[in-house]
Amino acid sequence: MRNQRGEMENSYDSIGSKSKDVSLKDLSIRLAEFAQVRGWDEYHSPRNLLLALVGEVGELSEIFQWKGEVGKGLPNWSADEKEHLEDELSDVLLYLVRLADVCGLDLGQAALTKIIKNARKYPVVVMNQKSKSTYS
Amino acid sequence: MRNQRGEMENSYDSIGSKSKDVSLKDLSIRLAEFAQVRGWDEYHSPRNLLLALVGEVGELSEIFQWKGEVGKGLPNWSADEKEHLEDELSDVLLYLVRLADVCGLDLGQAALTKIIKNARKYPVVVMNQKSKSTYS
Amino acid sequence: MRNQRGEMENSYDSIGSKSKDVSLKDLSIRLAEFAQVRGWDEYHSPRNLLLALVGEVGELSEIFQWKGEVGKGLPNWSADEKEHLEDELSDVLLYLVRLADVCGLDLGQAALTKIIKNARKYPVVVMNQKSKSTYS
Amino acid sequence: MRNQRGEMENSYDSIGSKSKDVSLKDLSIRLAEFAQVRGWDEYHSPRNLLLALVGEVGELSEIFQWKGEVGKGLPNWSADEKEHLEDELSDVLLYLVRLADVCGLDLGQAALTKIIKNARKYPVVVMNQKSKSTYS
Repeated sequence: MRNQRGEMENSYDSIGSKSKDVSLKDLSIRLAEFAQVRGWDEYHSPRNLLLALVGEVGELSEIFQWKGEVGKGLPNWSADEKEHLEDELSDVLLYLVRLADVCGLDLGQAALTKIIKNARKYPVVVMNQKSKSTYS
Repeated sequence: MRNQRGEMENSYDSIGSKSKDVSLKDLSIRLAEFAQVRGWDEYHSPRNLLLALVGEVGELSEIFQWKGEVGKGLPNWSADEKEHLEDELSDVLLYLVRLADVCGLDLGQAALTKIIKNARKYPVVVMNQKSKSTYS
Repeated sequence: MRNQRGEMENSYDSIGSKSKDVSLKDLSIRLAEFAQVRGWDEYHSPRNLLLALVGEVGELSEIFQWKGEVGKGLPNWSADEKEHLEDELSDVLLYLVRLADVCGLDLGQAALTKIIKNARKYPVVVMNQKSKSTYS
Repeated sequence: MRNQRGEMENSYDSIGSKSKDVSLKDLSIRLAEFAQVRGWDEYHSPRNLLLALVGEVGELSEIFQWKGEVGKGLPNWSADEKEHLEDELSDVLLYLVRLADVCGLDLGQAALTKIIKNARKYPVVVMNQKSKSTYS
């Protein structure tokens, strides 16, 4: 049996340093491989992944729950708190990417399409209360 | 006043055709501009965006709520249902990207880091029940 | 075929006026009957109801999403906004009650038990930061 | 300083045995007292409680996330799993009750009103696909 773990760690280490421009396609491929080599595919049904996503959104919310309003840039947050937040944001993202993948959908393309729809729904020139209140 | 809307539509149309490899950085920049030109920045505080994200997760869940188990690839879903799902997955993604951005965090880099942490937490060689059950 | 709808409206009208002290058991029984007479039982599996609950939590969050901090008692909210909030709080409650019921659990008794556990976990005399920060 | 903790434990023990018919009003009063004697009132703003609720919904979802479909009555769940589920269902309920209370709303009455609205929206006699699919 070949040393799969060593191989993967090498590939992970290399990406860690190279890139700030992470693509959704890249994440999707990595997560599919991640699940496949661990025998998790049978667990990754759409509704299982959706509930896992909801679980991570819960953990994300817990970080903010007792803080009252939080300013942009997280003033006065410790490095540990920021890292914790990065972890939970990432968990939500990873399950979302995986969910889209097992549904056979292209999340990156869908996101671009949605931005176009939103741009039409909320044109820049009209600045009334309604266009301010939401973009989805 | 220059025609901002026309400019944006041009740029949106061009991306629609060019690329399957959408990066998180690219989405983040587009959404920041999107909010800025609409005067939405004041509304995009971290907790406002988090609650908007939860709202979209709710809409995502509604799509799946009465369906019982759903197979991979969404067998028997109509094109309209799939497009609806793409829209809701995208809404979750867009708020997540925007939330990370207003927090001053690099979501793409954070996601890669989290995959590395997960790879260490769930090494491939150990295939016991625990490692199967979750990766977060 | 007897007029089931008329019957139910009578019973609903009568409770509307009588009581401020609504019990979880009472809600549970009403909802079970509500689903049964509409032929919804087959849809009310635990995970379907859970996802419906998540959907309603999303709608609840949407009410608060662009408001920034909100004071106790909802100062400056209109009567319509308050009624909308009551509707969404109720939807969350009704699915929660129904979920507990189809799981065969006694939610009221469970809630009392949880309060006792919380009282032991966060004794009144210890007023340090940790006990302040959360009770769950 | 009087022994507040002992007093409360007595009162909690007594309720534990007496009643299956737990009212929302009763829970609301207990939780208000619970927060007050612990000095938590300042933390219990509407949006803080809402995010805490979302956190608990996440924990509830985690229980169901890798299970695939779950049958009514939770066949094959252990007593520990059922108790865990009771705890998480209760946590959602307690934050929901507390949220309604700090908003100045009567959750029990609102729930009855919502059932009446739902009864009108989904009359029993009409059994088409739409009325089957949802009641909220």
